Amino acid sequence: MLYIIGLGLADIEDITLKGLNAVRNSDLVYLEHYTSILGGGADYKNELEKFYGKEIILADRTMVEQNSDEIIDAAKDKTVSFLVVGDPFGATTHTDLVLRAVEKGIKYKVVHNASIMNAIGCCGLQLYNYGETISICFWSDAENWKPKSYFEKICENRSRGLHTLCLLDIKVKEKSLINLIKNRDIYEPPRFMSVAQASSQMVQIIQEARDYVMDEDDENLTEINLKKLVEANILTEDTLAVGLARVGKDDQTIRVDTIKNLADCDLGSPLHSMVIAGKLHPLEIDFLRLFYNGEAQVKFDDLVNSHNDFYVKK
Amino acid sequence: MLYIIGLGLADIEDITLKGLNAVRNSDLVYLEHYTSILGGGADYKNELEKFYGKEIILADRTMVEQNSDEIIDAAKDKTVSFLVVGDPFGATTHTDLVLRAVEKGIKYKVVHNASIMNAIGCCGLQLYNYGETISICFWSDAENWKPKSYFEKICENRSRGLHTLCLLDIKVKEKSLINLIKNRDIYEPPRFMSVAQASSQMVQIIQEARDYVMDEDDENLTEINLKKLVEANILTEDTLAVGLARVGKDDQTIRVDTIKNLADCDLGSPLHSMVIAGKLHPLEIDFLRLFYNGEAQVKFDDLVNSHNDFYVKK
Repeated sequence: MLYIIGLGLADIEDITLKGLNAVRNSDLVYLEHYTSILGGGADYKNELEKFYGKEIILADRTMVEQNSDEIIDAAKDKTVSFLVVGDPFGATTHTDLVLRAVEKGIKYKVVHNASIMNAIGCCGLQLYNYGETISICFWSDAENWKPKSYFEKICENRSRGLHTLCLLDIKVKEKSLINLIKNRDIYEPPRFMSVAQASSQMVQIIQEARDYVMDEDDENLTEINLKKLVEANILTEDTLAVGLARVGKDDQTIRVDTIKNLADCDLGSPLHSMVIAGKLHPLEIDFLRLFYNGEAQVKFDDLVNSHNDFYVKK
Repeated sequence: MLYIIGLGLADIEDITLKGLNAVRNSDLVYLEHYTSILGGGADYKNELEKFYGKEIILADRTMVEQNSDEIIDAAKDKTVSFLVVGDPFGATTHTDLVLRAVEKGIKYKVVHNASIMNAIGCCGLQLYNYGETISICFWSDAENWKPKSYFEKICENRSRGLHTLCLLDIKVKEKSLINLIKNRDIYEPPRFMSVAQASSQMVQIIQEARDYVMDEDDENLTEINLKKLVEANILTEDTLAVGLARVGKDDQTIRVDTIKNLADCDLGSPLHSMVIAGKLHPLEIDFLRLFYNGEAQVKFDDLVNSHNDFYVKK
């Protein structure tokens, strides 16, 4: 039997009783620790082991994506728990694990838990007003890697009045390009994208798009499209956004401001997430107000009015 | 202190340890029981009380939406837990409760849990491929109440290749129109929309739209738009969908088929949910295959090909 157990978002006590019972009855316990981390700390293996009274095997990307047979085959005769931060179906790789277990005739059970996909509701923007979720990844100058297709997706959501949850990049046990090429098992220190970094990246996209000069026979459709979106004010530095840090923990921090201002904020230790607001409804505005740190509430009203102006004009 | 605690989806043991500790340390425990129910059973108050070792006060819509001061004021000097099936921020009304608590200077803490918004991942359609979530409510001939604006939202999602989570109506402790008008405290038996009912409703919209005859100076924009959407094959009886019943419970049931065929399925006791598929990716197709009950897998491949055909042609 293979249990895939969500650990929730923040603390050891976020596991459900169902999940804890399964872990305590397991012969082997794996912990996936590269798509997310629990509560921002990197060294919680010991803590978890004490709490569960079980030894834990850390499962990195290589083990889960390439050597998953070890986990699945063990589940033929033994009870195996595979622990995942958040909910088990938050990442493609866990879906794949389940699928391969089924193919081998292994029974599986899923124990659900909170993930950022629903806990994001804590900022007061209603879950049914969200569009497609996007991911923002670290850019790398060295590798000339600057994906920005997410920008158009945020714009599509905003055009429909919808909010966008932005999942921010996590790099745990990753190799640098050079170490990857040379096949060396040397890992970079873990990195977690902050709300400030994500916001800065967006501001950069916006500014570059605005400055972009089109040629007469320009065929760079991506750049042309970005320029159009920015010039149509669908997404600008002044669009309202929500920065969230450590959702579910006692020191959870939420900040509402323009993307431009969030580029300068410091929300502290990871994990961070971000929401780009779509059309704001009265209850949502009242809730966001709780998280606005500006000088006066008058300023917040101005920000909201200018933010929602886009929808009035449409 | 006011704790808003998510109970998860299915069983009593789906509460987190953090949530259980908060309940056991509370002076008063309220259970919201009209936006969702735990595990399909209606009579779980006693079971919960035994499990928690606490008396539970059932909070119906009237109490939460109109008499919430009772709950909030109690939290001034006492520790109050407010229990919600799923995650606390799944429904507008809970956001409102938090807001009113903050306005009165009451401290609050949220204990997150799984909700259908993320647990829906169990059908294998990746969460980041979902668009806006929609709600399908019971139609009432008597009251001439047949909202179908959700149909256009599903079409917008599908045009972008996105899946749509459909939340199906729940009527708990509702009054009939006549009892509402006469202000009589007589309640209808609880009703939970099934996947078959939701699918039938969609088939009806599709057929009526196809049969709709436009006049030359027709100004019924809604009907005209529906007709266009159906004739463009954006959403038809043959679109693939997923019906889910009792997500997270041991007898969880998932069925993949065309909307037309789901209109005839019986997935058993509540709660039910449904997903209208957008563009299907290889891993998603492999996973959906597990839940297809058709005669032969060949037929499933045909269904998927014809479903994805829409995106190839685009």
